[in-house]
Order: sequence, then C-alpha cells, then structure tokens
Amino acid sequence: MGIPRHIGLIAGGLDLPVNVAKSVIESGDRLTVIEIDPDCPAGQFEGAMRFPLAKFGKVLKTMEKAGVTHVCLAGHVGRPDFSNFKPDLSAMRYLPGTLKAAKEGDDALMRHVMGIFETRGFEIVSAQTLCQSLLLAAGPAGLHSISADQRADAQRAMEVAQLIGEKDIGQGAVVVNGVVLAVEAQEGTDAMLERVAQLPSALRGDAVSRAGVLAKRLKSGQDRRVDLPTIGPKTVELAAAAGLAGIIADAGEAFVIERAETVRLADEHGLFLVGLPKGG
Amino acid sequence: MGIPRHIGLIAGGLDLPVNVAKSVIESGDRLTVIEIDPDCPAGQFEGAMRFPLAKFGKVLKTMEKAGVTHVCLAGHVGRPDFSNFKPDLSAMRYLPGTLKAAKEGDDALMRHVMGIFETRGFEIVSAQTLCQSLLLAAGPAGLHSISADQRADAQRAMEVAQLIGEKDIGQGAVVVNGVVLAVEAQEGTDAMLERVAQLPSALRGDAVSRAGVLAKRLKSGQDRRVDLPTIGPKTVELAAAAGLAGIIADAGEAFVIERAETVRLADEHGLFLVGLPKGG
Repeated sequence: MGIPRHIGLIAGGLDLPVNVAKSVIESGDRLTVIEIDPDCPAGQFEGAMRFPLAKFGKVLKTMEKAGVTHVCLAGHVGRPDFSNFKPDLSAMRYLPGTLKAAKEGDDALMRHVMGIFETRGFEIVSAQTLCQSLLLAAGPAGLHSISADQRADAQRAMEVAQLIGEKDIGQGAVVVNGVVLAVEAQEGTDAMLERVAQLPSALRGDAVSRAGVLAKRLKSGQDRRVDLPTIGPKTVELAAAAGLAGIIADAGEAFVIERAETVRLADEHGLFLVGLPKGG
Repeated sequence: MGIPRHIGLIAGGLDLPVNVAKSVIESGDRLTVIEIDPDCPAGQFEGAMRFPLAKFGKVLKTMEKAGVTHVCLAGHVGRPDFSNFKPDLSAMRYLPGTLKAAKEGDDALMRHVMGIFETRGFEIVSAQTLCQSLLLAAGPAGLHSISADQRADAQRAMEVAQLIGEKDIGQGAVVVNGVVLAVEAQEGTDAMLERVAQLPSALRGDAVSRAGVLAKRLKSGQDRRVDLPTIGPKTVELAAAAGLAGIIADAGEAFVIERAETVRLADEHGLFLVGLPKGG
C-alpha cells in the first residue's frame, strides 16, 4: 500500500484484536496497541499500554505521541458505567456529547467516539479492512450446507435479525421449526444460545436430529468501521449444544475467527456455517 | 346475562385459570374444567378431568357429554413435542392441519385450535370477557406513576414490544436508559427479567436508583380470545430485582393477577405499574 501507516489499535475483548494485530504486522504497517481495561484480557500484546475508557484523554495523547495515523477499534467493549465514571480532563471535555450519544444507543455512541478520533486528526480504519482474510465468504465454510428443510428457518432468522438490527436492538436471532426461539439484545450471542439450550426440548432439535438456524447480521444503522458480527469456536459449540442445524450470516459482513477450529467443530457436529450472498 | 351458560374451561399453567373459574362460579354460569397435563398444576380444581393435549379427542368428547356451550382457553400451554406426539383418534384427524398451523407460529396454532372447537359447535369465550375485573385499567395501579425521566424508556419499550408482536416473536421488552436490554421470545417474561438482572450493573438501575421499563403488549396478530399478557407478583419481584423503575401495558389488554399483592409489591419496591390508554 505504498507508505507504511501507523495503526493505533484500540483493543477490546474477544479474539478479534489479536487477529487484527497479526494482520497489521504482516502487512508491514507500524502498530501501537492500547488495551481497554477491563474488556481486553491482559498479556495478549507485548508492551501495550492499558487504560480504562475513563482515561480517554490518555488514550488520545498516547496515540498522538506515538505518531499513530490510523485508528482501529476492534473487540467488544462494554458500555461504561457513566454513573461511576471518573473521566480524566480530556475525557471530561467530551463527556456531555458522549452521554447524549450513549442515550441514543450503541451505534450512536460508537459513531460519536469515532468522530472524536477524527476531530483529533486520526483516520478510522476498520478491522475488516485490515484483515479481510477473516471475513465469511459466500457459500458453505465447511462440509455442510443449508438443507432444504432448514431454508424456511434460515430465511426467517435473517428477517428477524434484520428487523432487530434496524432498531439497534441486536445482531442475532434463532429460529427453529418456524418459531423465533430467541432474539439477542444486550446479553450477546453466547448467552442467547445458552438460553435456547435450556428451552423445553419439544421446541428444539438435538444432536441426533438438528433443527433451526442462528442468524447473525450487522445492524443496518451500524457504522461498518466498527466490529462486524463474529463467529468462532464457542459460537459453534453453543449452537451445537442448542440442537441447531446451522449458522448463517451475510458474506463479507461477518468475521470467522480461529477459522480452522471453527470449521472443524461445525463439520464434526454436523452444522452448516454459510455466508449468504448479499442481496441474493 | 339471562340464560346461564355452561363454560368449558381448558386450563393451562399459571394463575389465570383459577381466576377465571372463580369468576364463572360467581356469575352463576355452569363450569366444567379440563386440566391440560402437564401445564396445569394438579389439585387446583375439584373434580376436574386431566388430559394431555394429545388426547384432544377426549377433551372434545368430555365437553360435549357435559353439555358445555362455551369454551375458554386460559393459562399457558407449552407447544407439544409433535415428534413425540401420540394422538388419540380424534386428535389424529386434526393433526395435519395442526402441524401446518404450528409451523406458522404460536398465533396460527391457537387460531387453528379455536377453529376446531367452533367447528364442533362450541362458542369461544375469552378469559377477559369472563373476568373483566382482572384487566389493567388506564393509569397507575398503585402509588407510583411514570416519572418524567422514564418516559423515553417507556415509549421505546412499547415500540419494541409492538414491533416484536407484529412479527409473532413475543410480548415483552425491557429498555433501560435508551438501550434495549432484552427482548422476549419463547423463554417468557420471567426468564427475560432474570437475564436483565444478570447484565453488567453499568447497564441497569438498582434498588436505590431505579431505571428502565418492562413493557408487555398483546401481539398484534394474536387472537384476543386467547390469553392476554399477564402481570403478577412474580413479574413485579423480578422487575424489582432487575433494577427497573416500572412496568407498563395497554389498558384493557393485560391481566393483573393477585392484584392486591401485585400492587402492594410494586408500591413497596417503588415501581410504577401503569396501564396506557390505547391510542393515547
């Protein structure tokens, strides 16, 4: 890409930040990592600084001092407890706008935070731009594809995921035998799948006779520079335990992390993991 | 009402059937109760017959023999496990249509079942017609009303409940500080509230500083002769434990069961329980 960039990676939870860091290093770009406490597990990045969100001013200054040109936000960061928030001076300055954005929902909050970085002269770069190889491609990722009897559930699950995404509620839905068993809001996909596994068995499939689909979908109002829906080994394990037949998402709009392991588990449990061509 | 009717009460779970039975007896109408096994707890109704849904033919015959004129379906009945369903002869006859309706969702299934009763000459009478005194009235049911700072959450919660109702997903939603924390699908309101209580405390209110609203709303495609959303002591206890500020529903379209205890608990915990005038 010509001139090497200097990527400032703001790392939250889960596996995505590690994958982004790996891609940046491989590409020859420079990398500075800031771990967000407590979301980012400690010890993943050598020599990384670590700040809570309330020290937002320190985050900005660290990046400016290091000479960062591009900022990438990757990994889950929990909403801060604004009633217990002890901001540094710089964070204080941005607080009124941040509180207002937080009231409007997760997407507004993220757009607001990215706006602050841009105001300070950083360019925002998305995780998917930095590691395109993690994106779910169109078609089956493993051995299994959507069977004819799962098509109706797959379609309904995508429709429900679209609907709740439009309203900034969440990214996922589970449909089994025509019934919407669960809708994801703030609890996250893992908790939703655990809940499905606890519903009466009459409503679900099982390891012998799998039924139903988990759909994950980018919220339509969501800035595409922020995290895409993510599917990993745990997603597959929990979907399998819930008796589901498979997992679907829009191709190019979801990450598959630890791909080899994720696909191996899906194959082993007999689940499909399929990227749907957008608009197809 | 002139000529006494003979009500055949098909009793599922929770407290509504007992309340319906009480109202029917008080009104002077005759009453025959059939408990649905396993949903209806045993021992609530003296001399009641008890059948699983699969013995639907027996349910019909028992009602015809007893001289039932009106059928009321009250209380939660879990979707049967059709893969393990051992229907009697009469139920067998209705099975293909029932399976088809079940695929279309809960509402279609209930409409189908009511259609069968009507074909056999019974009139369907709703629980709310039989016990109007249980309906949530417009305005606050207890001491507390919706405070100014909870209005936005209340409105959003009603909007989300409306949206998921239109799609036959569920009846409830929880919104706190502008964020949709949870959406109810097949797990039911109690499980949804328990989940909210387990979300990070930064997202929620607490007993000292309550925040957010549970909205319950009749699914818009739902036949009004079937159970309305129900609010009872457990709903209030769980909403209080989740740190919520209150509970709302459409006036005239939700039941308050064990009203005295429900309102007492809401008052004690400082929660509002408010019926919203329809279309107001």
